[in-house]
Amino acid sequence: MKKNPLQLLLNPSSIATVGASNNPLKMGTIQALSIVKDGFPGQFYPIHPTEEKVFGYKAYRSAYDLPEAPDLVMFVLPAPLVVKIMEDFGRIGTRRAIVITAGFREVGSEGKRLEEQLTEVAASYGIRFLGPNCMGIVNSELPLNVTVCPLSGKPGLLGMASQSGTYITQTLPYLQQRGIRLAKAISVGNEADLDLTDALEYLGSDQQCKAIALYIEGLKNAGRFLDVARKVTAQKPVIAQYVGGSDAGARAGSSHTGALAGPDYLYDGLFKQAGIIRVDSVEELYNQGWMLASQPPLKGSRIAVLTNSGGPGTAISHTCNAGGLEVPTFSEKLQAEIRQYLPPHGAAGNPVDLTFHLDAEAITTILPDLLLRSGEIDGLVVHGLMGTGFLKAIHPHLQELFAGISADDFSSQFKRDLSATLSVFDRYDLPVALSSFFGREDNFTDAYREMGVPVLDGPEKAARSMLALHRYRMVRQRAEYQPATLPPVSVGASQLIKRALTEGRSVLDEYESKQLLAAYGVPAVQEILTHSEKEAVEAAAAIGYPLAIKGCSAKFAHKTEKGLIHLNVINEEGVRESYRSVMKAAGEEIPLLVSKMVTGSRELMSGVVRHSSFGPCVLFGLGGIMAEAFKDRTFRLAPLNEAEAIEMLQDIRAKELLGPYRGMPAVDQGKMAAVLQAVGNLALLHQEISEIDLNPVMISGSNPVVVDALVVLSCPADVS
Amino acid sequence: MKKNPLQLLLNPSSIATVGASNNPLKMGTIQALSIVKDGFPGQFYPIHPTEEKVFGYKAYRSAYDLPEAPDLVMFVLPAPLVVKIMEDFGRIGTRRAIVITAGFREVGSEGKRLEEQLTEVAASYGIRFLGPNCMGIVNSELPLNVTVCPLSGKPGLLGMASQSGTYITQTLPYLQQRGIRLAKAISVGNEADLDLTDALEYLGSDQQCKAIALYIEGLKNAGRFLDVARKVTAQKPVIAQYVGGSDAGARAGSSHTGALAGPDYLYDGLFKQAGIIRVDSVEELYNQGWMLASQPPLKGSRIAVLTNSGGPGTAISHTCNAGGLEVPTFSEKLQAEIRQYLPPHGAAGNPVDLTFHLDAEAITTILPDLLLRSGEIDGLVVHGLMGTGFLKAIHPHLQELFAGISADDFSSQFKRDLSATLSVFDRYDLPVALSSFFGREDNFTDAYREMGVPVLDGPEKAARSMLALHRYRMVRQRAEYQPATLPPVSVGASQLIKRALTEGRSVLDEYESKQLLAAYGVPAVQEILTHSEKEAVEAAAAIGYPLAIKGCSAKFAHKTEKGLIHLNVINEEGVRESYRSVMKAAGEEIPLLVSKMVTGSRELMSGVVRHSSFGPCVLFGLGGIMAEAFKDRTFRLAPLNEAEAIEMLQDIRAKELLGPYRGMPAVDQGKMAAVLQAVGNLALLHQEISEIDLNPVMISGSNPVVVDALVVLSCPADVS
Repeated sequence: MKKNPLQLLLNPSSIATVGASNNPLKMGTIQALSIVKDGFPGQFYPIHPTEEKVFGYKAYRSAYDLPEAPDLVMFVLPAPLVVKIMEDFGRIGTRRAIVITAGFREVGSEGKRLEEQLTEVAASYGIRFLGPNCMGIVNSELPLNVTVCPLSGKPGLLGMASQSGTYITQTLPYLQQRGIRLAKAISVGNEADLDLTDALEYLGSDQQCKAIALYIEGLKNAGRFLDVARKVTAQKPVIAQYVGGSDAGARAGSSHTGALAGPDYLYDGLFKQAGIIRVDSVEELYNQGWMLASQPPLKGSRIAVLTNSGGPGTAISHTCNAGGLEVPTFSEKLQAEIRQYLPPHGAAGNPVDLTFHLDAEAITTILPDLLLRSGEIDGLVVHGLMGTGFLKAIHPHLQELFAGISADDFSSQFKRDLSATLSVFDRYDLPVALSSFFGREDNFTDAYREMGVPVLDGPEKAARSMLALHRYRMVRQRAEYQPATLPPVSVGASQLIKRALTEGRSVLDEYESKQLLAAYGVPAVQEILTHSEKEAVEAAAAIGYPLAIKGCSAKFAHKTEKGLIHLNVINEEGVRESYRSVMKAAGEEIPLLVSKMVTGSRELMSGVVRHSSFGPCVLFGLGGIMAEAFKDRTFRLAPLNEAEAIEMLQDIRAKELLGPYRGMPAVDQGKMAAVLQAVGNLALLHQEISEIDLNPVMISGSNPVVVDALVVLSCPADVS
Repeated sequence: MKKNPLQLLLNPSSIATVGASNNPLKMGTIQALSIVKDGFPGQFYPIHPTEEKVFGYKAYRSAYDLPEAPDLVMFVLPAPLVVKIMEDFGRIGTRRAIVITAGFREVGSEGKRLEEQLTEVAASYGIRFLGPNCMGIVNSELPLNVTVCPLSGKPGLLGMASQSGTYITQTLPYLQQRGIRLAKAISVGNEADLDLTDALEYLGSDQQCKAIALYIEGLKNAGRFLDVARKVTAQKPVIAQYVGGSDAGARAGSSHTGALAGPDYLYDGLFKQAGIIRVDSVEELYNQGWMLASQPPLKGSRIAVLTNSGGPGTAISHTCNAGGLEVPTFSEKLQAEIRQYLPPHGAAGNPVDLTFHLDAEAITTILPDLLLRSGEIDGLVVHGLMGTGFLKAIHPHLQELFAGISADDFSSQFKRDLSATLSVFDRYDLPVALSSFFGREDNFTDAYREMGVPVLDGPEKAARSMLALHRYRMVRQRAEYQPATLPPVSVGASQLIKRALTEGRSVLDEYESKQLLAAYGVPAVQEILTHSEKEAVEAAAAIGYPLAIKGCSAKFAHKTEKGLIHLNVINEEGVRESYRSVMKAAGEEIPLLVSKMVTGSRELMSGVVRHSSFGPCVLFGLGGIMAEAFKDRTFRLAPLNEAEAIEMLQDIRAKELLGPYRGMPAVDQGKMAAVLQAVGNLALLHQEISEIDLNPVMISGSNPVVVDALVVLSCPADVS
């Protein structure tokens, strides 16, 4: 397997910085300081045009003065100077770079040109680089930190790749405070060379990272991202936030890193397809990411809730349950055991509520142990482990009664040896999430955060973190991914498309569209294209009544509204009437499609849309003329394997319709899935297709039948 | 207007405590200490059987020894002792009480009996009380704090009523840390007497409370809550969390305070109807509650986003936009003004991104001022105001360069006088929400929190807080509430119901159901009930083809599946065939309903469900046989006025269907609303009705026509 270029970039044995100086209030200096102060074990070479030394390290005038070609060079100097010096480093043999400098593509056309020059120079020397306009990297293992904020504490478990530098830099103190520890973190900036997908791939292969968090404003190539993400999520959890799906989000992202955003529904489908857990805030990204990274996987869905407070216990139970986890009532035996440690008005059933009191032994040690070894649960959520935080809070009122004691002395009177308490969670291979309204000022919160157990500052957050494990469990329960295989190109289909394009048409008529679909096995209604009243009557007799009769011309969209469709035609007279009526509505002679009337109450739809960074995406949803109002649809990137197509069927709100429903048999999921696969394949095999719209796909008995179809092509003129 | 009993309970001039002692580690003592330590200005009378003094205050043996009847008595002693002493206080003339003590209804039948005794005794003396099993009250204005944790800081603006004591007690330090200040807070516990609705009413009338937050596990009487909440939300924002809507949430709430929970969808409808903003976590309740309480209302939907960091700026813009706010691109003029203060690679368009640097003047002072006075925005969200927090974070790396300077000295070198900065927001009557990854360790976060400006610890949270103002703006834009008026009872309807009940039937057949509806003006399809093939044929001729022909018997539900419905019958032969086929399917002679065939593609539904604490609730949603799968429905409490009914129409996902849609005319909203109002009125006027199910209500042209209907009655036997 080809080594990921980020392997060396995050693990260099020597680094040069260009732009750092002895001015401690320059960002570049602060970033260079992070390298040496946070313990980078390799060589550090500051390049500086005038200084002899940069914070005590010998400075070099240029790349050519260095004693060796460093593995990595970091640029923090103004944009116009970067290209030239990148070339210097290319010449001496450096092959990895980080360009912190902003002022490239994100500022408009001149910056874009500069970025292109940079990319060219780098490529000509085989230099792989991060940025420009990024905040660098963190490798807590080596250690190596090139970001603005210091890295403290033990090496972490959570990998992070971000299109915002802030989320791996400015948030380091925030994360440290919350006990969330990054393993390796990568800010990708403008992604002129290495991008978020490269970062995901690297973090996926890195043993230190137990879970990966992604902050995304827009992907250049969703297909490649999907390929990589699928492999990673089969090994470890990936959680992502996407913020480019609204007008304002897309515009903001574009001015931030020049990211090319796409519609929210495509990203939603992409994440589902890739097995990525989606969240809507950076706090959830970190919190749930840390839960996924630090806790063993959920092996079932039974959660115990343990609290000293009814409100948080109820909120946790509700949040878990509403999200798909069970909060089962415990066995009588377990309840009896629990009750020994409860006051008379406590609750033992689950949630276990000790109600509030100062003795922490039961809630912190005895009951967690009892629950974890009970065999009745798969995970534990606890609210209300607290000690000194509460004591400090009430100290002002008690000080006088304790002869003027200080807050620290007061709280330390109640401090216990926590070793027995802290060892409980380690003894069991079950996930635990804690919630507390106290931060590090509390000895329990502090100790748990130090040992890596998630302590969230709200009961619902602890519950949602457990739900993240549940969501990843669902991902892991999917069958191993089997690549979709494309069928051979149909010559007939190619000819059909070519003919339309030759005729200057960008729309295939209904009959052509169905022929195209039929070439890839998509079942359409039985029908005959006719060109006269006589032909129509003959076709009707051949097919048999009742019939649907439609004007067939690429010119007319919205046939229903135009009066070009006659349904439930039941005899020859009806056929003749329909013929005349359609011709009149069309205002000219157009062909008439005589179709078997499909009866069935379930109207679905499928199709293909394209988006520049996604390629063709398959749509599935509720169809019929109400489709626009229902808005019950889901998307995936083509090609689809069968399992993915079947997952799509389960991803609409009205999925119940597909089962046996009110006397109707279950939809043949294999056949419906085959339709979705086929439209995706069609768009991949015939790149001229810009849009496919099958609506309705009716369910006749158990089987999907395409009743109306529209294929739109990109005329050469449209493509330019 | 009658004075709310909580007025005196929260504003007593004297308090007795029963159960507090000199043992400082008893909760009761700590709570009594809060009264005196937090500065209660009235008389404090501890009752104690043996002690001469309780923390320096003269103790009394019993109520009878007191020099006066205190306005309020608080019980913190064991449950079995409360009733007797409550009686003592009743005798001496005390009329308000707080029963902190647990061990009543929430522990089972014996506790329930004890609670009933307590309620009886209190009632017999006219004592109004909170609890039992509550945590008391906070009145930051008086001040009076009877909870466990100290109350610190200035009097607040947010009122809170909670079915969990924790949320007004244990969270006080959490709130103080976050700059969220309660005005008055009420823990209602088991609600044996005063309940959450009383608390809402009181807080609604209290001038100090600018917004009200509610934590709810279940309401005893949703109708009364609605009446009160409607009035309050017309004056000030109310925000609520409801956690009883899942199995586990309902069970947990029941064992916590004995709360009677109800389905989530009914609470959802209740909150919408009342104009209450719903959230899903206690953090949102506090954060958004504080935003609503502390900031001026949004007067439009244009939001400016100002940051020093692209990621948070993009996330804020996206979250605002996705939630319904605009993040408009600024005028060229404003952008030019902004650009003066930006580095070359900053962004001026909105979001304004200064990119990261240490000089805080522009982002904290100049640009907020520029934006707030621009006239181009209605609200401002800022991320990245920071000073000493960041400096302390980077201090370890810079210490050496600054000759070993301490963190405090280092950060204070950069401290600025913040008065000019802090005064900016005060100068404009526009709402502002801030986000920072630094807490109180940062001088900006600390100063803003002290002055009451919301500083949230995540960009999306700041955006969501602004969205809470947007949601309240929508509430305030509703027309003033006009009480619904009920029509007179229809004698025919009463007789119809009486007849069915006399015959021992709990189901009205379709024909009867439609007669009942017609009595209240609900338009049903034209139809004739027939009892023979001959009558059916005559009816068909009278109505005209095409027809729907249905077996009509209260015995048969799911007529479609049973083969009792024949649609599109177009001639006499069809009528005869249908007749025979229905009789065969039914297996006996049943009446046949001959109905005009209603054509139309839009199938809706309405109906009524009942829930013990809600009374009749009106349903509106997508109908037809797919209704169960669509699950697109909304609920409101009956009776509905027209505005409420029309709001329901707009509260389904597929609401687009009701407009002009694909060639169909817009649904007559007034007529559709009248149907919803009528079914609610019906259930209110005829309490024997337990369920009404109109499905489908088809739209014929613009008009709703009830095509099938089912009314279920509570037989006297069912009611018991």
